[in-house]
Order: sequence, then C-alpha cells, then structure tokens
Amino acid sequence: MIRSVTHSLDNYPHTGTTRYEDGVTKIPGFACSTMDAEWLSKQLKLRMPVQLFLKSSCKQGPDVLSYNVIGEIRGSEKPEEIITAGGHLDSWDLAEGAHDDGTGCMQSIEVIRAIKALGWKPKRTIRAVMFMNEENGLRGGTAYAEFAKKLNEQHIFAVESDAGGFGVETLGISGKPEQYAKVKSWEKLFKPYGIYELSDGGGGADIGPLKPLGTVLSGVNPNSQRYFDHHHAANDVFEAVNKRELELGAFSMAAICWLVSEYGL
Amino acid sequence: MIRSVTHSLDNYPHTGTTRYEDGVTKIPGFACSTMDAEWLSKQLKLRMPVQLFLKSSCKQGPDVLSYNVIGEIRGSEKPEEIITAGGHLDSWDLAEGAHDDGTGCMQSIEVIRAIKALGWKPKRTIRAVMFMNEENGLRGGTAYAEFAKKLNEQHIFAVESDAGGFGVETLGISGKPEQYAKVKSWEKLFKPYGIYELSDGGGGADIGPLKPLGTVLSGVNPNSQRYFDHHHAANDVFEAVNKRELELGAFSMAAICWLVSEYGL
Repeated sequence: MIRSVTHSLDNYPHTGTTRYEDGVTKIPGFACSTMDAEWLSKQLKLRMPVQLFLKSSCKQGPDVLSYNVIGEIRGSEKPEEIITAGGHLDSWDLAEGAHDDGTGCMQSIEVIRAIKALGWKPKRTIRAVMFMNEENGLRGGTAYAEFAKKLNEQHIFAVESDAGGFGVETLGISGKPEQYAKVKSWEKLFKPYGIYELSDGGGGADIGPLKPLGTVLSGVNPNSQRYFDHHHAANDVFEAVNKRELELGAFSMAAICWLVSEYGL
Repeated sequence: MIRSVTHSLDNYPHTGTTRYEDGVTKIPGFACSTMDAEWLSKQLKLRMPVQLFLKSSCKQGPDVLSYNVIGEIRGSEKPEEIITAGGHLDSWDLAEGAHDDGTGCMQSIEVIRAIKALGWKPKRTIRAVMFMNEENGLRGGTAYAEFAKKLNEQHIFAVESDAGGFGVETLGISGKPEQYAKVKSWEKLFKPYGIYELSDGGGGADIGPLKPLGTVLSGVNPNSQRYFDHHHAANDVFEAVNKRELELGAFSMAAICWLVSEYGL
C-alpha cells in the first residue's frame, strides 16, 4: 500500500499501475491517501492494533476499438511538412482527468483555433492531435507514427502538453544541434510570457514514436509543484484548472508551432 | 466602477483605494466583479435599460495604536549586522488576506523556525518582521527604518515576500554592483528548487524605507498568474494557498538570509 505523493493532507488516493517482475508472486497494490497514511502511521507508532480491510475491484478489461482525434490547417506553401500539437484523450478513470490530460487536449485545439481566429495562414501544416490510450499502452501515439511512416509523411516538429495545465516555465526541445540552435534563437520571444527557457531535451509519451522519423520533439514543462495534488486522483477535476495558466500553456504551443511553420527547422 | 482584473469569471470584486488629484470633485469609486461586469456589458450592448443601485459604507476610520511584530536570532559572530525577513500583518478587510500578506508573514516566521529546527547558529542577526499598516500608509515600515536610524543599527540585508504565496520564480536584488555580483554567485544553489534567477532589482514596500541606510534589498517574486484572482478580494483565503508553494517561498527567504548571514555582503 503506497502513500500518495502529494504534499497536501487530503482524502484523494494517488492511484497508478502495479507492475511485476517475471517470476514474482503477484499481490494486489493499493493507493493510500495522505490522511489515511498519517492515521495508520500514528496508530503503528502508538503500537495500537491495526486491522486493514482491503477490497479491490480493479481489473484489466478487454481491448475495444478507439481513435485518435485529429484536426489540421493545411499549410499554404509547404503543406507536406507537418507540425503536431498534441495531448491525450484518455484519463485515469476515477476522475475527469482535467490536468491529465484534458488541458493538453484543449491547448492543442486552441493552437488551431487561435491561428484561425487571427486569420493567419500557416506556411506548413499544423495539426491538433488528441492521442488515445496514453495511460495504458500508448497505442494512439504508436499508430500515429506508424501511419506517418506508411504514408511517408514528413513530420518536422511535434509538441506535447502532458504535465498538467499549470503555468509554463520552459519548453524542452529535442533535435539535432543546428535545429535546437534555431529554436533557441526564438527564446526571447517567449520570455515576456513567463517562459524563461527553451531548454535542451524534451518531448512527450505520445509523440515519442515520431522520434525515429527525425521529428524535432518538444514538451511543455509547466511548474510541477501542484501536479501531484491531482495526478491520477479523484480531484483531477475542471475546477482545479486555472484559466489563465491553461491559456498560457496554449500560447506556448501556438507560438512554437507558428514559428516552426513560418521559419522551418 | 472598475471591473476586477482577474481572468476568472467570478463574483469576487477586486477592491482597492480611490485617489483624487487636487481640485477634482470627489466621486465614489466601486469595484465590480467580472460576472457583474459581463452582465452589465451585455445589457448595454443590447441597448437594454440599465439602472444601477450603488451603496457604499466605506469610510476612513481614526488612527489607532498598533505594532510591528518582531522576532530574531542573535548572530554568533557579528550580531550587530542585521538581516530582515518580512511580510505585512495588515490586510484588506473583506477577507483574511491569506496571500496578501499572510503568506509573507508565515514565510518570515519560517525563516527563524527552520534555522532553529536545524540547530544552526547564524553568524549575523536574522529577524522575522511582520510589518503593520502596509496597505494604508506604510507606517510600520517607516517606523522600523526610523528606529534603525535612531539606534544606529547596521541593516545589511532585507527581503520581503508580499506578492502572494505562489511558486517562486526569481529573487530580485537591489544593491551596489559588487553586492549584487556576490549574491548572483549563489544563483546555482537556488536553481534546483525552481528559482531560476537572482535578478537585478527588487525589494518590497515595507523594507523600502531601509534603502537610504544602504541596506541591500530583496523581493520574493512568485509566479503572478493567480495573484489577481485573489488580491484584495473576498476569496483571498487560506484555502487558496498551496502548502508546497508556500514552503518554497519560505525556503527562498531562509536560504538567502542564511547565505548573507554566513558570507556577509
């Protein structure tokens, strides 16, 4: 039984998966809220008798057919060069999955919406992709890269937001040194919005399978201090998302996608 | 009537003071929540008749005697050199003033508590000061500097937290170039805790009056995106403070005070 990693004292167990090494006897794993963990700990320190009643209804269901959801603006000059902004649609099932990863999905859609609302025409194709099955196998991300390869698509850049809808601190970039240097030269454009660095190294689970195609990958890195107050817990709800922080994350993605679209990589 | 500056749609008017230039007829000023402002704006756009009933009970009360609250650890080697960590005790009276500035007070106390808990003996004197009357005249800060001058105290450094108990991004430093350079050399010690810069220029309202005494001033700069969801509004309450963010602010103050105490300026 694992104590939640949040620093808050609350009653929202931080759930997760249990993995077993081969040959090890499988025993159930349980998530324990900080309040319950504190109580248990106190009882044990007082050498009080503690009896634990555990009941789990967890099970692995059969696979069902599902889909990535994709929208795009075709590029006006180089439509064959594709830029992806993504998040994932699925969530841990005990809550809405607002921060993991509703915010990433909304921010990805906002990249497209904002560009349309401004009446801008990107030179390259910009896609918003809501990946399916990030939490449990990464099949959406894997299928996306497989299709890209099969169709011989040219994926020059992909950015993912999957670390919560909190205030963005940095964008991480993984690419060849000259590609990173080009992106790094845009850093000053981000600083006024509180994004203080375009740092070396970054990506995301769903866009990771694009790496072998030579795609430059980027990850949105928000401030992490509040993430594990909600991550995979029943309080990962819409009300825990701050509108302004959500918007700044969308801004960071829209800005980097627009710059890559206009200036290439 | 002024619309609240928060990006949230809520019913918490963001209050403030009204100031008049000389010779201008004094009219009342009102704070309007974003929800009410949206409603009003819609009515006006639809050219609907709008009638506004305004009632204000604001008044300037008579002065009453009040106090700064001060605690200190005397320095073991140079007790005459004083370091101040401060916030302000008073708050806008429609709420608890949790972020403005309960968090600054708690963080200042935490500087002293943490050093005591660690059993460390600072070389120089470290003070936690809760200033009175920041919001309405700055008399606590003014009196503190007046006493410092009268008693010929040597105030080498003062840091204030009065911008909300959110995750700290930078510490601002105001001092002579060589003093700033010395503080700047400690920057790498702060980075692992998410404080990415010890930046040039900073201070706080209450410690500002120490400036003419040659005190190096510092301000805690937290991420500002959520501050005006609560600032001077009825929802500036304890529940809006995140424990972890509060602690990281206290860490930033304790660390800078400790470094100045050990290495001087």
